[in-house]
Amino acid sequence: MPAAYLTRTVQFSAAHRYFRPEWSEAKNAEVFGRCAAPHGHGHTYQCMVTVRGEVDGSTGMVVNLAALDRILAEEVVQRFDHRHLNLDLPEYAFGRAVPTGEELCLDIWRRVSARLPGGCALATVRVQEEPALFAEYRGES
Amino acid sequence: MPAAYLTRTVQFSAAHRYFRPEWSEAKNAEVFGRCAAPHGHGHTYQCMVTVRGEVDGSTGMVVNLAALDRILAEEVVQRFDHRHLNLDLPEYAFGRAVPTGEELCLDIWRRVSARLPGGCALATVRVQEEPALFAEYRGES
Amino acid sequence: MPAAYLTRTVQFSAAHRYFRPEWSEAKNAEVFGRCAAPHGHGHTYQCMVTVRGEVDGSTGMVVNLAALDRILAEEVVQRFDHRHLNLDLPEYAFGRAVPTGEELCLDIWRRVSARLPGGCALATVRVQEEPALFAEYRGES
Amino acid sequence: MPAAYLTRTVQFSAAHRYFRPEWSEAKNAEVFGRCAAPHGHGHTYQCMVTVRGEVDGSTGMVVNLAALDRILAEEVVQRFDHRHLNLDLPEYAFGRAVPTGEELCLDIWRRVSARLPGGCALATVRVQEEPALFAEYRGES
Amino acid sequence: MPAAYLTRTVQFSAAHRYFRPEWSEAKNAEVFGRCAAPHGHGHTYQCMVTVRGEVDGSTGMVVNLAALDRILAEEVVQRFDHRHLNLDLPEYAFGRAVPTGEELCLDIWRRVSARLPGGCALATVRVQEEPALFAEYRGES
Amino acid sequence: MPAAYLTRTVQFSAAHRYFRPEWSEAKNAEVFGRCAAPHGHGHTYQCMVTVRGEVDGSTGMVVNLAALDRILAEEVVQRFDHRHLNLDLPEYAFGRAVPTGEELCLDIWRRVSARLPGGCALATVRVQEEPALFAEYRGES
Repeated sequence: MPAAYLTRTVQFSAAHRYFRPEWSEAKNAEVFGRCAAPHGHGHTYQCMVTVRGEVDGSTGMVVNLAALDRILAEEVVQRFDHRHLNLDLPEYAFGRAVPTGEELCLDIWRRVSARLPGGCALATVRVQEEPALFAEYRGES
Repeated sequence: MPAAYLTRTVQFSAAHRYFRPEWSEAKNAEVFGRCAAPHGHGHTYQCMVTVRGEVDGSTGMVVNLAALDRILAEEVVQRFDHRHLNLDLPEYAFGRAVPTGEELCLDIWRRVSARLPGGCALATVRVQEEPALFAEYRGES
Repeated sequence: MPAAYLTRTVQFSAAHRYFRPEWSEAKNAEVFGRCAAPHGHGHTYQCMVTVRGEVDGSTGMVVNLAALDRILAEEVVQRFDHRHLNLDLPEYAFGRAVPTGEELCLDIWRRVSARLPGGCALATVRVQEEPALFAEYRGES
Repeated sequence: MPAAYLTRTVQFSAAHRYFRPEWSEAKNAEVFGRCAAPHGHGHTYQCMVTVRGEVDGSTGMVVNLAALDRILAEEVVQRFDHRHLNLDLPEYAFGRAVPTGEELCLDIWRRVSARLPGGCALATVRVQEEPALFAEYRGES
Repeated sequence: MPAAYLTRTVQFSAAHRYFRPEWSEAKNAEVFGRCAAPHGHGHTYQCMVTVRGEVDGSTGMVVNLAALDRILAEEVVQRFDHRHLNLDLPEYAFGRAVPTGEELCLDIWRRVSARLPGGCALATVRVQEEPALFAEYRGES
Repeated sequence: MPAAYLTRTVQFSAAHRYFRPEWSEAKNAEVFGRCAAPHGHGHTYQCMVTVRGEVDGSTGMVVNLAALDRILAEEVVQRFDHRHLNLDLPEYAFGRAVPTGEELCLDIWRRVSARLPGGCALATVRVQEEPALFAEYRGES
C-alpha cells in the first residue's frame, strides 16, 4: 500500500519573551536581542502538522481529518491561543524552556503524536512566527 | 554532479463528493462529514510537482521547464480543470476511488512520472485543497 | 469621531455551473467557456466582508468582532460551504441567477447588511474564486 | 498631472490585551472575549501605508521610497516592534485607548501624515493582525 | 442595476533601471538609490486590473472574463514579460519615462481602457514589484 | 538531544539572461525559450535557507538567528540584490554558469555553509523566482 502525507495548518496568537533569569541583562540581550525586551512581544503563529500513513483503500485517506482537527484544536489552539506563553504555561515559565519556535515544535510533537489514531504517525511539526521565519521538528533525536 | 529539485505549481478548479455507495448514508456522514453532502462541493486546487535530477552543466537545469509545463498542462490541468471528478473521470466514479487529495496525488504521480524526460525523476506531488490543507505523495509504497 | 473599516475573511468550498437553460449549448459555451461544462466544477472561495463605522471611544472598535463572526458564519459559511450552488440553493437554480462572483457578492451584501448591528454599515463584499480572480460589490446601484 | 498611489508594507511583532479597568471582569469578557485574557497575547502585525500624490514627471514617483521607508521605520517599526503595547506605550496603558487594529490605524495615521514630504498625502493605513482580519483608516472623520 | 467590480491578476518578469541621463551619477544615486545600479535589476511583477460595470442580468457578469483575459495577455503579458523595460520598450528608453510602478500603471491604464468592451470601465490598475510594495492608478488626473 | 530545523526567507531583486554564447541563437531559443531574450529580464527572488542543528537546552535554538541573518544579508542580499547576475557577477558571465534557480541554490549553499557557526549545518537552500516556481538544493551530490 502506498504511504502518503496530510498537512493541516492551524493558527494561534500568543505573547512570549526570551529570557533566562540566571543570566545577566547584558547576556540576555546579547543572545536574544529584542526578544528579551522586558514586557514581551507576540506573534500570529501558523502551525502546520504533517501526518504520514498508508492510504486507506476505501476512504482514500491517511488519517480522518475530523479526528486530526479535534486533536489540533485541543493540543494546539486551545492550549496556546490568546495566551502569554511564559505566564500562562508552566512549561515556559521563566527559568524553564524558552518558548522559541523550536521548543514549541518539540512540545506540539509530543502532545499530538501521543493522540494520533492507529495507522498513522507524525512526520513534521512546523511553527511559523512570521512569513519569513519558521522552525520544524521531524522526529530526529 | 550535484542533484537538485525543481517545483512547479499549477491550478485546477473541480467539484467532487466523498461517498461510498456500498455504505449507508449514516456511515458516509460519519466518515466523510460534510464532504458527503449529496450534490458535492468543490475546490480551487493548487498542485505542486517536484522533480529531482542532476544539474546539467551547460543549461544549469534539472529538467527543461517547457517540457515539464507541457506534461503538467496535459496530465493535470486539462484532465482535472473545470471537471466534476466523480462524474467526468471514470477513476473516481462512485464505488471506485474516493477523490481525496491523497488519491489525486497518487494518480498524478503515476501519470507524470511515466512521461518525464530521461535524467530526472519525480520526488513529490502535492495537492492543496485550501490554504490550510494539503496532501503529498513522495513515492513511498 | 473618526470612521474606520474592519475586514474579515471567511472561506467556503462549493461547486457551481454557469448555464442558462433558455440558451443553446453553443451560446452557453461561447459566453461561459469551460464554466458551462455539464457536470460543473468548484472553488475554494475566500469571502472578505468590510464594515465601516465610527471607532467607539471605549472599545476601540467599529463593530464587535464576535457579532460579525456570528453573522458571517450563518449567512456565508453555513449557507454556501460544501454546497453545489445550483442544486442546493434555489436562488441559483438553473434559469435563475448564474452563481458568478458578482452575483454572490450582491447576495451576501443583502443578507449581511440586513443583520449588522447599529452604528456600522457594509462597505465592501469581495468574493475570490482563485488567487488571481475576485469580484467586489460596494453598494453602488 | 495624474495622481497615483504607492503602498508599502512593514511588519511588527507585539503583545497586547483588550481590557477596560473601569469595567467588571464579566463585562470585559463579554465585550472582548478571549482578547481580555489576563496576561495578554500577541500578533505578527502587517501594516500597509498608502500615499497619494501626483506622479513626478522626472522621477516617475508619487513619493521618494527611501524617504517613506525612513518614516515607517521610525514611526511604526521602531515604535511597535517587540513591544507590549499596553505596558510599553503610554497611549495604550490600561484605562486609555484599547490597542485594537482600528486604534493603531488612527495612531499611525497621525504620526506618519505629520512627517510626509510635500506633494503627497496619506490615503490609507491598514493594520492586519492575522491573514483573515484587518482594520483600515482612510482619513474620514 | 447594481454596479460591481472584477479584478484579474496577471504576472510578468522584467528587468529595469531607474536612471536619468541628464542627471549626474551622484544625483541618480541620491534619488533612485540602488535602483540606479548600472546594469539594472528586475522583478516578478504582479499586475491587478479592476473593471467596473453593471452586473448583466443574464450572465451575472460585469465583463466577459475571456475577453478581459485576451486584452491583458496582449497589452500586459506579451508586452512586458521577459523584457528589459528600458532596452526593449521605447517609452522607457533612458531619458524618457522612468519605468516605476506608477508609470507602468499609467501606461497599462491607457492601453487596457482603450480596448475594454462597452458597458464597463477601468477602475484601478495595480502593479506590485514585491510582496511589500505596489503602485496604483485609479484614473485621477 | 533532538535536532530541529530553522528556515529564514530573504528577498532580492535581480536581472538575468539564459544564454550560452557557444550555441546558435536558434539553439538558445529552443532550450531557454523566452529566457534567452537578448536584453534579459528579472525576478523578485525569495530565498529560503534551512539550517539543522540540535536544540540548545538553554536558548531553545538550533542557531542564533541574528548570526544567521548577518550571513544571509552578506552572502545573499548584498551579493544579488539590485544586480544583473550575468553582468555584475563573474560566476554568471555569459559562457560560464547560467544563472538558473538551481545554480543559484548551489552557489548560495557553498557560501552560506562555509560561514555557519558550529553545531549546525545547512539542510536546504530554496530559490523561488515566482510564486509558481522554485528550485532547491539539499546537499546531494
